[in-house]
Amino acid sequence: MKSNLAVLKYGGSSVSSFDKIKDIATYVKTRVDEQEKLVIVVSAMGDTTDILLNNIQQLNKNPDDEHVALLLSTGEQQSISYLAMALADLGIKAKPLTGAQATIKTTAQTMKSRISSIDEDYLNGLLEVNDVLIVAGFQGMNEYKQITTLGRGGSDTTATALAAVLECHCEIYTDVAGIFSIDPRIYPDAKKIDMISYEEMMEMSFLGANIIETRSIKIAINNNVPLYIAKALSKEKGTWIVSEKKLLEKNIATGIAVDDEVIQVDINHPGYSSELVTDVFTLLEKNDISIDLISQIEDEGKNHYSFTTKSEDKNRLTKCAMALQEKYPDIEISLNEDYVKVSIIGAGMMEAPGVISKIYKTIIENNMRIYQISTSGISISCLVDEVNGGTIARLLSKEFDL
Amino acid sequence: MKSNLAVLKYGGSSVSSFDKIKDIATYVKTRVDEQEKLVIVVSAMGDTTDILLNNIQQLNKNPDDEHVALLLSTGEQQSISYLAMALADLGIKAKPLTGAQATIKTTAQTMKSRISSIDEDYLNGLLEVNDVLIVAGFQGMNEYKQITTLGRGGSDTTATALAAVLECHCEIYTDVAGIFSIDPRIYPDAKKIDMISYEEMMEMSFLGANIIETRSIKIAINNNVPLYIAKALSKEKGTWIVSEKKLLEKNIATGIAVDDEVIQVDINHPGYSSELVTDVFTLLEKNDISIDLISQIEDEGKNHYSFTTKSEDKNRLTKCAMALQEKYPDIEISLNEDYVKVSIIGAGMMEAPGVISKIYKTIIENNMRIYQISTSGISISCLVDEVNGGTIARLLSKEFDL
Repeated sequence: MKSNLAVLKYGGSSVSSFDKIKDIATYVKTRVDEQEKLVIVVSAMGDTTDILLNNIQQLNKNPDDEHVALLLSTGEQQSISYLAMALADLGIKAKPLTGAQATIKTTAQTMKSRISSIDEDYLNGLLEVNDVLIVAGFQGMNEYKQITTLGRGGSDTTATALAAVLECHCEIYTDVAGIFSIDPRIYPDAKKIDMISYEEMMEMSFLGANIIETRSIKIAINNNVPLYIAKALSKEKGTWIVSEKKLLEKNIATGIAVDDEVIQVDINHPGYSSELVTDVFTLLEKNDISIDLISQIEDEGKNHYSFTTKSEDKNRLTKCAMALQEKYPDIEISLNEDYVKVSIIGAGMMEAPGVISKIYKTIIENNMRIYQISTSGISISCLVDEVNGGTIARLLSKEFDL
Repeated sequence: MKSNLAVLKYGGSSVSSFDKIKDIATYVKTRVDEQEKLVIVVSAMGDTTDILLNNIQQLNKNPDDEHVALLLSTGEQQSISYLAMALADLGIKAKPLTGAQATIKTTAQTMKSRISSIDEDYLNGLLEVNDVLIVAGFQGMNEYKQITTLGRGGSDTTATALAAVLECHCEIYTDVAGIFSIDPRIYPDAKKIDMISYEEMMEMSFLGANIIETRSIKIAINNNVPLYIAKALSKEKGTWIVSEKKLLEKNIATGIAVDDEVIQVDINHPGYSSELVTDVFTLLEKNDISIDLISQIEDEGKNHYSFTTKSEDKNRLTKCAMALQEKYPDIEISLNEDYVKVSIIGAGMMEAPGVISKIYKTIIENNMRIYQISTSGISISCLVDEVNGGTIARLLSKEFDL
């Protein structure tokens, strides 16, 4: 891990005006003055991407991915040009690079593409003759010389992948001040976490705390890249996301996440059928529907399954339900959207006794119900009534001192 | 010359709105429906380039060329994306290409760069699997993988160079309906020219009729590319610019150009000095000042030179004058900006007798003066009082039936 090199990523809201771009340049200068070399990844300015997407609607309701990626990539190309100009104005030698110029090779698809390689020797060579490299986030080039975009959270992916190949840490600047133990909108007394493990952060991301995409965290885990999440242009300390080994003491509970984008599926079949189980889960898999919080009850020769899926899968789920209903006329399938999933995350949770009973006690003593519960190595998730989600999250935050 | 392939170029005012882009797509479809393959070169939409240049002022008053070129090139990249979407919406298979993607390699400088090569095999391969290629005008990539821009009139250069390597003609669509024998603002009865030779057009361009840059015409001459200039989205016939051989009959006079961006320099030295001549013209050459309409009088041992230069050279010219004054204290140098240059262009002019006398007669009979006169193979230029420029142009238009 190099100590005089860092990747810094600024999201769209951090570069939404020329004044903000100048402020970032001023901050970058203080770092360069301390003999650091920097790679800065920027997103498109403010709502540029939304404006471009809206323009497309005037020309084509169902545009080709190649055309869309080519258009959207201009947003970041403009940002890197502007930041380079602002840095040059302060006497900093900065080299702006599009994804293609930064040698970011991706898989073939032009939208939601994945990074396949970066030529670190080329970038290290550029770092020898420049103070700062400015790389357009969210984009790359595929083997067909098409400009590609990386999909949601793509600039975070660019930044983390660059830190991985350049062997340095990655600072992600955003409009929130770091990772909180629980969404401050739900629980205003939420504490900021100084340091969290990759695994805990993965659970937090999966479970609805969308501060950084899981894709970036996976790259960080695989390449042992320390991530730092903080508020852009603020002196407030952010959150480090590091390997578990670096955490001196594992937290019992690090955070709470509330996910209201869940559908509970309940399948009831009066007679036992071994074929049914296979049919249900093969059908879901074929339709790319991922399953969470699964419960299975087999009694008196009945089949009864409950599981949760994501709200975004609803259309495909409805089709699956209809197909099953046709094959098994006696089956009862219900989709319930009135639940939320409340999860407590903590790397030390499974090693600390009595956590589950504490959760049950807190919820039941307050006259609320848990419909399903599931445990993983570092988290416990409960399905509860949507109306109670906030209250339960607050009660558990207090109970676990978050 | 391929007959089922053409390069079409649309300038910024032709693609200034999404409606215009849709109209171009509709027109292109009519051509594709007739089994033509097309390469379309587009500029940035409307005033996009001016807006981007203005944005730069907020960040850096003296920006790096590399940063500016990187920013400006996004304008054309957006245009090609939008046109590709509009064509796809009509079922046309169109492939958008940035300058770099179109294999347009340029010289090293990032602004005012020159095209050094285009890989025609690659483009011909793309034309086999696409109906239309859409190429971003005004840009390319240099050997250092920097995005470069071609400078003024750059999209015309892109279009003509593509037509040259693909061996087809080039149609340049603009907001004027073709080449007129004289600027219609000076002479409202000006006739549109159906066909003009490259050489005549070169003279027209040099002499101030800025419809197409001389750079594009030079490429057309060297590669024998027929050019067609017409109004975008209009049924009105435009002007073909072709080699002289294709003109069945040479015109005595094809057009008249008025150039008011001239300075006349008058140098008078009382005693003869052979060194002075060399000094004057070496100094001008060193300062990159080009000379036109030169007259020299040597009598009674005096040196007297008059010549014209461009108004844009005034600052450098003034410095030269000061240097000469210092070396030759007796010299008298005057710069006069109250003249304009009126030129008659016609490939057959030198072969038709009495043209010069007709010009002299027309001007002198109307009580106006010619200060200097100069003839080239296909043009005659006169330096006249600025106030008389328009009148003389109109009189000569009538006299030569333009």
